[in-house]
Amino acid sequence: MTIKTLEDAFVQELQDILHAEKQLVKALPKMARAASNPDLREAFASQLEETETHLERLQQTFEMLERPFGAKKCEGMVGIIEEGQSLLSEEVDDRVRDAMLIEEAQKVEHYKIAAYGTLCTWAETLGHEDVYQRLQDSLDEEKAADLTLTELALQVVNPLAVHLVE
Amino acid sequence: MTIKTLEDAFVQELQDILHAEKQLVKALPKMARAASNPDLREAFASQLEETETHLERLQQTFEMLERPFGAKKCEGMVGIIEEGQSLLSEEVDDRVRDAMLIEEAQKVEHYKIAAYGTLCTWAETLGHEDVYQRLQDSLDEEKAADLTLTELALQVVNPLAVHLVE
Repeated sequence: MTIKTLEDAFVQELQDILHAEKQLVKALPKMARAASNPDLREAFASQLEETETHLERLQQTFEMLERPFGAKKCEGMVGIIEEGQSLLSEEVDDRVRDAMLIEEAQKVEHYKIAAYGTLCTWAETLGHEDVYQRLQDSLDEEKAADLTLTELALQVVNPLAVHLVE
Repeated sequence: MTIKTLEDAFVQELQDILHAEKQLVKALPKMARAASNPDLREAFASQLEETETHLERLQQTFEMLERPFGAKKCEGMVGIIEEGQSLLSEEVDDRVRDAMLIEEAQKVEHYKIAAYGTLCTWAETLGHEDVYQRLQDSLDEEKAADLTLTELALQVVNPLAVHLVE
């Protein structure tokens, strides 16, 4: 796809986040299985449900823009998920792994916050009021999920992980 | 490096962000040269200065923890920067490229917000009060840089880029 206008850049970024979300649908169940803390497993399960909703919203967005529903390889998310996969294969204590899983998940969330944040400002500039709200809803959910993970880290997971060194 | 404790995970994450910051010292001058808007060029130049300060703080952090100053390949940032490099080689109108450069730079910022955010919570949990403030200072600067880019996109760069389709 050749980029000539901001509209082209907008569509390419939609293809990028579509690829990112699709990768997450595969990665999140593995992260949930690797988590030992039940609250963390639940957080990942809930993130998976939200990711599926984001995919539906993206499908609607492509339809509304009358563009073919297609993904473009998202190198950023590929790299972030690769870091997470190597963690799953390491011989780590369960409680420390939980803390590291949250770290990876927050990198995922922040990639998506940046991507949906840009998509929202571009949708606004381009006058796509109809798709703007869908993108904003996904952005709000990413920000909320990130806060949930921070709370979980501070209140539950990190205090358990640190006891190992005492 | 084998991860056994949260302290090990903390050091590994410091090695990861060190690699990320080192890559940025190389990438930001290219992004500044590719930017056509003078305010954006200035924003990238200022980010480069801050990145150099973050590197100095990391060096101090490794010294205070009495750990060797060394980097671990940061796959996430490698992927994000790769996306940005492919953009630099594309035949794009200058004003649209500026909008896309901001998008890439915000993905960079958000990766670092996630990384420094985790490092701060881990430093707090581990009782590393001395290094905590340095990490928090870098985190605050990343958040401020991200806001600056959003303002620049909304007020200057996006309105210029969208005129091309009118």
